[in-house]
Amino acid sequence: MDFSIAPETERILAIMREFVERELEPLEADFLAQPFRELLPRLRAKRAQVQQLGLWAPAMPAELGGMGLEFTQLAHVGEVLGRSPLGHFVFNCQAPDAGNMEILSEFGTTAQRQQWLEPLVHGEIRSCFAMTEPEHAGSNPVWLETSAVLDGDAYVVDGRKWFVSSADGAAFSIVMAVTDRSATPHRRASLLIVPTDTPGFRLLRNIPHMGHVGDDWHSHGEVVLEQCRVPRDYLLGDAGAGFAMAQARLGPGRIHHCMRWIGICQRAFDMMCQYAATRAIRPGTMLGTRQSVQHAIADSRAEIDAARLMVLHTAWKMDRLGTRQARIDISLIKFSVAQTLMRVLDRAIQVHGALGVSDDRLLAFLFRSERSARIYDGPDEVHKDVVARRILKQYGLNVT
Amino acid sequence: MDFSIAPETERILAIMREFVERELEPLEADFLAQPFRELLPRLRAKRAQVQQLGLWAPAMPAELGGMGLEFTQLAHVGEVLGRSPLGHFVFNCQAPDAGNMEILSEFGTTAQRQQWLEPLVHGEIRSCFAMTEPEHAGSNPVWLETSAVLDGDAYVVDGRKWFVSSADGAAFSIVMAVTDRSATPHRRASLLIVPTDTPGFRLLRNIPHMGHVGDDWHSHGEVVLEQCRVPRDYLLGDAGAGFAMAQARLGPGRIHHCMRWIGICQRAFDMMCQYAATRAIRPGTMLGTRQSVQHAIADSRAEIDAARLMVLHTAWKMDRLGTRQARIDISLIKFSVAQTLMRVLDRAIQVHGALGVSDDRLLAFLFRSERSARIYDGPDEVHKDVVARRILKQYGLNVT
Amino acid sequence: MDFSIAPETERILAIMREFVERELEPLEADFLAQPFRELLPRLRAKRAQVQQLGLWAPAMPAELGGMGLEFTQLAHVGEVLGRSPLGHFVFNCQAPDAGNMEILSEFGTTAQRQQWLEPLVHGEIRSCFAMTEPEHAGSNPVWLETSAVLDGDAYVVDGRKWFVSSADGAAFSIVMAVTDRSATPHRRASLLIVPTDTPGFRLLRNIPHMGHVGDDWHSHGEVVLEQCRVPRDYLLGDAGAGFAMAQARLGPGRIHHCMRWIGICQRAFDMMCQYAATRAIRPGTMLGTRQSVQHAIADSRAEIDAARLMVLHTAWKMDRLGTRQARIDISLIKFSVAQTLMRVLDRAIQVHGALGVSDDRLLAFLFRSERSARIYDGPDEVHKDVVARRILKQYGLNVT
Amino acid sequence: MDFSIAPETERILAIMREFVERELEPLEADFLAQPFRELLPRLRAKRAQVQQLGLWAPAMPAELGGMGLEFTQLAHVGEVLGRSPLGHFVFNCQAPDAGNMEILSEFGTTAQRQQWLEPLVHGEIRSCFAMTEPEHAGSNPVWLETSAVLDGDAYVVDGRKWFVSSADGAAFSIVMAVTDRSATPHRRASLLIVPTDTPGFRLLRNIPHMGHVGDDWHSHGEVVLEQCRVPRDYLLGDAGAGFAMAQARLGPGRIHHCMRWIGICQRAFDMMCQYAATRAIRPGTMLGTRQSVQHAIADSRAEIDAARLMVLHTAWKMDRLGTRQARIDISLIKFSVAQTLMRVLDRAIQVHGALGVSDDRLLAFLFRSERSARIYDGPDEVHKDVVARRILKQYGLNVT
Repeated sequence: MDFSIAPETERILAIMREFVERELEPLEADFLAQPFRELLPRLRAKRAQVQQLGLWAPAMPAELGGMGLEFTQLAHVGEVLGRSPLGHFVFNCQAPDAGNMEILSEFGTTAQRQQWLEPLVHGEIRSCFAMTEPEHAGSNPVWLETSAVLDGDAYVVDGRKWFVSSADGAAFSIVMAVTDRSATPHRRASLLIVPTDTPGFRLLRNIPHMGHVGDDWHSHGEVVLEQCRVPRDYLLGDAGAGFAMAQARLGPGRIHHCMRWIGICQRAFDMMCQYAATRAIRPGTMLGTRQSVQHAIADSRAEIDAARLMVLHTAWKMDRLGTRQARIDISLIKFSVAQTLMRVLDRAIQVHGALGVSDDRLLAFLFRSERSARIYDGPDEVHKDVVARRILKQYGLNVT
Repeated sequence: MDFSIAPETERILAIMREFVERELEPLEADFLAQPFRELLPRLRAKRAQVQQLGLWAPAMPAELGGMGLEFTQLAHVGEVLGRSPLGHFVFNCQAPDAGNMEILSEFGTTAQRQQWLEPLVHGEIRSCFAMTEPEHAGSNPVWLETSAVLDGDAYVVDGRKWFVSSADGAAFSIVMAVTDRSATPHRRASLLIVPTDTPGFRLLRNIPHMGHVGDDWHSHGEVVLEQCRVPRDYLLGDAGAGFAMAQARLGPGRIHHCMRWIGICQRAFDMMCQYAATRAIRPGTMLGTRQSVQHAIADSRAEIDAARLMVLHTAWKMDRLGTRQARIDISLIKFSVAQTLMRVLDRAIQVHGALGVSDDRLLAFLFRSERSARIYDGPDEVHKDVVARRILKQYGLNVT
Repeated sequence: MDFSIAPETERILAIMREFVERELEPLEADFLAQPFRELLPRLRAKRAQVQQLGLWAPAMPAELGGMGLEFTQLAHVGEVLGRSPLGHFVFNCQAPDAGNMEILSEFGTTAQRQQWLEPLVHGEIRSCFAMTEPEHAGSNPVWLETSAVLDGDAYVVDGRKWFVSSADGAAFSIVMAVTDRSATPHRRASLLIVPTDTPGFRLLRNIPHMGHVGDDWHSHGEVVLEQCRVPRDYLLGDAGAGFAMAQARLGPGRIHHCMRWIGICQRAFDMMCQYAATRAIRPGTMLGTRQSVQHAIADSRAEIDAARLMVLHTAWKMDRLGTRQARIDISLIKFSVAQTLMRVLDRAIQVHGALGVSDDRLLAFLFRSERSARIYDGPDEVHKDVVARRILKQYGLNVT
Repeated sequence: MDFSIAPETERILAIMREFVERELEPLEADFLAQPFRELLPRLRAKRAQVQQLGLWAPAMPAELGGMGLEFTQLAHVGEVLGRSPLGHFVFNCQAPDAGNMEILSEFGTTAQRQQWLEPLVHGEIRSCFAMTEPEHAGSNPVWLETSAVLDGDAYVVDGRKWFVSSADGAAFSIVMAVTDRSATPHRRASLLIVPTDTPGFRLLRNIPHMGHVGDDWHSHGEVVLEQCRVPRDYLLGDAGAGFAMAQARLGPGRIHHCMRWIGICQRAFDMMCQYAATRAIRPGTMLGTRQSVQHAIADSRAEIDAARLMVLHTAWKMDRLGTRQARIDISLIKFSVAQTLMRVLDRAIQVHGALGVSDDRLLAFLFRSERSARIYDGPDEVHKDVVARRILKQYGLNVT
């Protein structure tokens, strides 16, 4: 066993860490107070700097213009970038584009890759992923209403999707739609590339999320597709393989989320300690002298360290043995890191008192916006079900 | 022991319950989406209805135009009104005005009562209470910078206050200021009535709170007082009695908050059960069939019932023996009900999935805005300290 | 609402409280160190004192020689007696006899009452209740192997039972056995009185429970019944009514357990505060000055008060509306008070440090012996299921 | 980063794992039911087998007859041996002997090592470590009454010690005693080797611990030292260095405990899964189909994995950078793994129902005997204090 980080990785992380601190954290106050679109020009300038530093699109292969890092390295990168809500976006490894890049890179035809993947990797366009539907539980991804029917050389897509992150301003959406309702549940759906300017594709609204309507990348859309015709060769991978590809996309995506959450935890932990060390509760006596504050710090340190090692271990397992062998681990980190995240944020807020619930600090934003970490990509409960069923199988019990 | 509610109280509660459901809940979507000021005309109309129903200002004595209820009754009322974030405002028993009415009613001179209390009770003006200062821990109420210096017939007030709820649009503020820095800590400060149009009184900003800048009643201000001159007879009660009066105000105030939180819990519980009973997770199978959802319901029911009985018991004790005898109980409910509240909201959100973090439902608003329940009027930790010290005294240990 | 305790009840409680403290607590060290049988002579003497005080068998009607208290009073009594593990036994309201007295009193024929109930109430004999079977989950009380087959004028009982509390030394057992395997599940079983000297009735062993084999009343037996013939008129109530009678027995039984647990909590709380107030952590500084200890005290106080009010409220509801109307409440207190109990004991031990896990104090005994509170009479999970299903029914969902 | 275990270590672990399962687990029922002394002959035979396998005394250097493993390997070994309460004893790496071997190995003179260390490593004698005193908080190790006064060529030791694990049957005790009461607190005490047959050394009693008086190695003694004269050269290390040496002993000791606890967790987890997979709750339906059981499994898996990685990481850090650099980590794992342990045991018991609190399974023993994990070698609270203070120092705050 060797827990040390390779020097080359350390070098990259050090540059990223400094970049986040110097270039991105100063933008956060405006990020909180302004529409995302108003911040975009400044973010584009930062993106250009990142490209010049050679730290662009860390998850993408070098031949596509990325850094070609493996999962373990990406995990470390995710932690560093996660310290700021702007980190992933500026380094072009933000959800949902990162997942779409992976799926296009793995399953796309040459033409699809040229048309959609390349500009995505270059940061020229954005994309979204439309799976969940208002009328069907998101926790049951094989139950969909949206359909894609072959009509000559085109698929005609009809349906309604929501919590389509970053739909506002996206150039295209990957849409999960039923292509064969008579197939077995996991073979019913396919993935299609639907350009957002396709007639019939309509962004109904950005769904207000924890008090924030949002815009552009920083939004969650509700989308209607009415008789959207897309060329037959916009089908991604095989017909009927939609669920399998979506799952393949989610495995790595969960690692990325988890390490981003660790980054958030580290940031909140720093803020908590900094405040405890410098805020007086009476003349000459700092907040950090209170045992309850000390225990908030100690508990958080233990939980963050534990969560971090679990995610790194999972990433290492994916590098070594592949995503499939790490399925239990991926589900374990999904629910346990999300819970750690909320506990750490909660403690950091409590230590800050009224300042913690105000937007004079970043904590209140993180607390409200990250509550959904325990829900998206599978709620805690579903991941626990999955883990337990896989484990019980090893003990001879099949739970259906 | 008798846990039954008097028929007359039940009658009042039934009317209020129906009013909240029929008249206020339909306004909530607009309350979430619009500035408070835009809602005000409609709220004023509702207030007029309430006055006609004879249910106005339940905490105020009948001779002042209120209902003259005792604490136990007020607790029940608070639960019913707390089901909507608009309830207390429309019945004119909202913080911070309710507390200010109590303080003016108990300590105000006849002139003060005529000038400030009467229009407050009639709902013609609003008020605020300025205690916490940015540079001093709010958990240490005897440590203040703001001063009020006698200069002839006037006090000259200088200082800075924040988290002054509802300062925006208030006619006057009750301000806690040091009048004698050489006195013992608990005798240093006094309370002064400072009209908000006093030269030198300035609302710097509404502090963004959990993503919400707010306005009018629904806001938390940062206020500067520069050489504010107020007549000497705007002093409330005795000089040096500021801390004692603020405490007297907080005791009942905590009951009101706690029962409002119980009301919120009940509402969230209803939403959770309703959703569990009607949301399908696959065709024909409802969410409520999942044991994890069932346990969220059972745990919440137990915790709400427990919290409710504790608050009612505390109110009863205050009616019987006075606030002073119920001091331990008041601190106990402050921290334990606030924690119950957050747990119940958290579960209700989790059961709702993505819908729970969206503003299509009320839960996300409650989750973010009520996080401060564990902070204002004394953070959990301070109340636990207070409780334990009082208890340990009974076992012979004085902790200073 | 009126939370005050009637003066007459207060008078009884005061005497009991003093009796427990003066007469029973001094016996506890020997109770921990010796077989129960060796303590019996001294306990019998205490029982005689209790009879003379007129405080005997508080749950039994006066005409049978008891105090005839109602549930709310019994709840208060249970709390006071629960402060010592010897309390209920000495006042002859201990499980499982108390439940058996209730069942005989409610469903027994005149002959059965004369033969079994009267000596039980007089404390001349003891009894047990045999329901759970080793091969069938105790959480599923309708799934039993033990059978009782009519053969002429006798039932022939065959089966194996375990966790039969106090089987060792009991004069008779009430046995739950299937009398009609073809009936609907809840109508299959009946209750039979089986004298322990019936040929074929054999106490296999006392099951070691948390390191304690136990003996006499203080034991949990495993019992075999082989061709046990009992007269037909030893059938309790109707054939097929076994499950319903067992449930009727359990409702009040849960109140008794819950209030006993509250008594244990109060005792542990006292010990924790006493120790915190008097144990030095360095010269002149007491343990109670540590904020973590203070918060253990405050959290425990809040949870005990909450649990206590819930149980009292449930008892009141049973007095007013009957057990059936209080079914949700009974399940709520069963799981929530049991959890409170374990949390309070855990904190009290942690505050005591090494002394807490030693048997120089009572806490270690309580911690290990009461862990089963979360299991017997229905594990937490089953009660939560029951509560949620009853509640969801009110929202229109039937969960089978 | 590389989480793989070296093949040579894997080979050792595989043999140990099989040995524990085949040779030791079958002895556990007798271990629970009999005095330890009665089991000793069989355990000695197992010890001889272990010596022949070359797996003896894994923590001791090869030249002393041990395996000479480093911390990371020892951590893995501790996990495997911890699966049985007999594991460490049979492999001669049990507390308190393991710590005493380390201290003698590091600080002992050649004579001391020959006389005491060698027979200890060979398993010919046992030892104990006497630090905590009844009248002084164990959490404050610099506050001691026991004194050792030089009188000619001998130290005269007087004092009383308790929770001296394994004093019963030990050949010698290492005793912490004040040699210079006027020194600064951390320089007052020294460590002395006191043979247990020294006149004046008396084992008062084995302190009953969670219902178990214990004997021989499996006991916790209370010891009186009255005018015990030991030769001056029985002083270990320097006079005044007692506290420092005790701390040096505790660092590695905590790793050993933590990995043993992980082993216990793994065993309990296996039992829980095995039971869930095979216990029917109704005909044909297994316990493991209940979502609450599944979540107990998933939560436990996540917490065990997290705890395990933290301990392995700490061991690795100790191997790489030394114990001093890993002080924060050591305190973090001490409290967090102990809490994980109790949570996992609690869940495993709950899943087992009544069987879980009976001694027909190992769980009840583990639950009661390991409760002290959160207390010995520093209670949770003290470790949290230590962690937070070290961290806050990095943020500029010195908490004294």
